[in-house]
Amino acid sequence: MTFVVFINGLVLLLFAALMGLNALVFRDTAQIFGLSAILVGVVGTLTSAATSSSFSGLHRLHAFILTSSVWVSAALAGALPLYLWSLSPTDALFEAMSGITTTGSTVMTGLDTAPRAIILWRAMLQAIGGVGFIVTGIAILPILKVGGMQLFRTESSDNDEKQLRNAAMFASATLQIYLGLMGLCTLVYLIGGMNFFDAITHAMTTLSTGGYSGYDASFGHFQSPFLQWSATLFMLLGALPFAWYVKSLYQGSFRSEQVRAMIITLAIVIAALSFWLILSNGIPPLTAFRLVAFNVVSVVTTTGFATTDYTLWGPFAVSAFFFLTAVGGCTGSTSGGVKAMRWLLLSRALRAQLKTIRFPHQIITIKYEGRRVEDGVMDGVITLFVLYFATFFILSVILTLLGLDLTTATSGALTALTNVGPGVGKTIGPAGNFASLSDPAKLVLVFGMFLGRLEILTVFVVLSPAFWREVVW
Amino acid sequence: MTFVVFINGLVLLLFAALMGLNALVFRDTAQIFGLSAILVGVVGTLTSAATSSSFSGLHRLHAFILTSSVWVSAALAGALPLYLWSLSPTDALFEAMSGITTTGSTVMTGLDTAPRAIILWRAMLQAIGGVGFIVTGIAILPILKVGGMQLFRTESSDNDEKQLRNAAMFASATLQIYLGLMGLCTLVYLIGGMNFFDAITHAMTTLSTGGYSGYDASFGHFQSPFLQWSATLFMLLGALPFAWYVKSLYQGSFRSEQVRAMIITLAIVIAALSFWLILSNGIPPLTAFRLVAFNVVSVVTTTGFATTDYTLWGPFAVSAFFFLTAVGGCTGSTSGGVKAMRWLLLSRALRAQLKTIRFPHQIITIKYEGRRVEDGVMDGVITLFVLYFATFFILSVILTLLGLDLTTATSGALTALTNVGPGVGKTIGPAGNFASLSDPAKLVLVFGMFLGRLEILTVFVVLSPAFWREVVW
Repeated sequence: MTFVVFINGLVLLLFAALMGLNALVFRDTAQIFGLSAILVGVVGTLTSAATSSSFSGLHRLHAFILTSSVWVSAALAGALPLYLWSLSPTDALFEAMSGITTTGSTVMTGLDTAPRAIILWRAMLQAIGGVGFIVTGIAILPILKVGGMQLFRTESSDNDEKQLRNAAMFASATLQIYLGLMGLCTLVYLIGGMNFFDAITHAMTTLSTGGYSGYDASFGHFQSPFLQWSATLFMLLGALPFAWYVKSLYQGSFRSEQVRAMIITLAIVIAALSFWLILSNGIPPLTAFRLVAFNVVSVVTTTGFATTDYTLWGPFAVSAFFFLTAVGGCTGSTSGGVKAMRWLLLSRALRAQLKTIRFPHQIITIKYEGRRVEDGVMDGVITLFVLYFATFFILSVILTLLGLDLTTATSGALTALTNVGPGVGKTIGPAGNFASLSDPAKLVLVFGMFLGRLEILTVFVVLSPAFWREVVW
Repeated sequence: MTFVVFINGLVLLLFAALMGLNALVFRDTAQIFGLSAILVGVVGTLTSAATSSSFSGLHRLHAFILTSSVWVSAALAGALPLYLWSLSPTDALFEAMSGITTTGSTVMTGLDTAPRAIILWRAMLQAIGGVGFIVTGIAILPILKVGGMQLFRTESSDNDEKQLRNAAMFASATLQIYLGLMGLCTLVYLIGGMNFFDAITHAMTTLSTGGYSGYDASFGHFQSPFLQWSATLFMLLGALPFAWYVKSLYQGSFRSEQVRAMIITLAIVIAALSFWLILSNGIPPLTAFRLVAFNVVSVVTTTGFATTDYTLWGPFAVSAFFFLTAVGGCTGSTSGGVKAMRWLLLSRALRAQLKTIRFPHQIITIKYEGRRVEDGVMDGVITLFVLYFATFFILSVILTLLGLDLTTATSGALTALTNVGPGVGKTIGPAGNFASLSDPAKLVLVFGMFLGRLEILTVFVVLSPAFWREVVW
């Protein structure tokens, strides 16, 4: 367990460093970020120093605590400067959790005139949160066997520590790709006419599929079709499996069943919605295509940028965007939601079941990337699916108990769980924000974002008393 | 296949007989029901006579066609007198399908002044639909292995025909209990002050968990607390497994895990909602308890009677009733929805998964009624759950495409699929009805009710082209 505390300490030190950097760049808020850096830095130094000399080995169950606690530490540290600046404790926590989980729901208004340091800080939270989740998805979740992620276990060795190390090396290659794409995105945004600050902050929140913007109008602030198409592309790149980038570059083969499934799904949805929008709302074809592509990719990749209030397109668009919220990008990316791999396996299991009806005595195996899918993986996928459904239901009911109407409650619960950002309905739709919700409702959503980011099960395991009876201290 | 046609013919003859009965009792509509009886009788006689002498044996796959086709025949025959009376073809089909599937959604207004023969006919459709579904649940679905129903397979023999016969004997005992309870319910309603016609028609729609009433105010027409409590009790009795009644009477043991699960769930939900209603809406405790008990039992048993517009209680009540729509009663009853047995198995599978995380090398078995649940059963349960979710999603989106708002579309799709009856929202809530929807929307809901009644998979199998390549003619 000392290792868990140690890593949390390191994370806090990283945050302190970034706060310090922020304090150096922006004069007007230097006091806020300086003070935050000192406070977080002291806590980080103390905890990491106290535990650095006494590693007791990483038990498998410790990885659950590690993952959950790091996200909590990061959210608390991330909230500090926002609180010191002007937000209430709940709002600061909401904004930081939304940032670190790359959700992108915001309680802040007047973003256009907010200090640039605050806008940068929100973007930084998403950039760190994004890479944190990629590393978690590649290195930790496969060991935890959460949501069928053992499918991506690189070695079949039982030595978890060795696996963790191999995975960490792989993760560092991934980090380079992440930063490389972010640099490229910045460049493209500059070419498209953004100033340097906008380009870099929006690149950070695009690649991390986070969706924070420095403007109340979100990406709609930039009316340039070139910029909107660029963002569409880079959101998509952020939702692809980062391990697949590494493999593709080394092996020269770009085959991936979940990437293909996601692209095909997107193509069909975008074509259908564009076609419908042209016919029903009389919008010119090219404009309709751009609007639909941007906003569908934004929701499916769980980014949450908006260029227009698509809920004004009518009930079909509302329901389409409502349900698209659950889709998600690929596993091993920065994206949230159920994710393409799981939808693919779920649909294959369903097809296998229909086949079993016709041929009851035949044994039907489910394959993924040409290999037989073990029962444990399928169980994990289904468990995640059921947990999503159950958590969605419980959070929705609690939110209505707190006074939210049915649409706001259900879409709020869903958008938090899937880390998308905007919901549907008047209050939390793409044109609204979360500021007007009550503090208890905000805290429920904070918990929802946290649950969703760690694929629910990770948190549930840590919250169960039976778990703590098994943990070796 | 001739057997399938023969049974359809018999069903039509049964309908012709009931139409004839109706024509004899009510003078004012004798022409309508007399004509219907003749038309349906001729078709029934021809089809059954033509096929009675050439049985080719019942192949397992024929049972799928049998089940699906009988429901379609019944809905069409049931719609005929309603159409001849005054309804449009779509409305007549909607009303008949809603009746025969014991859903209880209605497109008719002015029920209080409608001919009594029509009201009786609607009640008859639900009474037949109810017993038809009990027999299907006991005798057919276990053979089809739909939704994990093979759990209730009485014999492990592979001879399907023998099983069908055993099950049919069991089903006849069940029929006696069904009619006995219906008689008892009529008696209690008479004691409570209903006239004979109201008592018998409402007993028919109570025990079948159908929910049709002869009044626009539904059961709210009867303001007597005694009657409301009686209906609460008999709706509950209709949602218990009828095979369990038979077993309990013979063996003297009333133990059943799904019955217990349903009762406990109802107790918790009713207690919580009553408590909340007393606090938030200031309704006197006893009244609140009665209102909540009646309406919760009505929705969970998928009856769909209403005594009050509970959607006026606020967003929490709306979401509670929205989600309660999915719960359902017990398998082997007249009730629809996902049903208690499946929720129980799903929650046990989930708990087993959480345990697997802590003890990865331990094999955890799932039990039901003390016996180990086979993988095939669990697969069936999960398949049904996923199919419910997928169908709900598709129907909802289609309904919004037809112009319904999100709440009406989603709750309409759900209430049709689960055969509950009323939805939430202004249009199709407990105080509204389905009359104002467009014809295409009504037809989508007709299909939804049909799908839901046959546990979705049965219909999907018959609709798949691959199925027909396997069928022996």
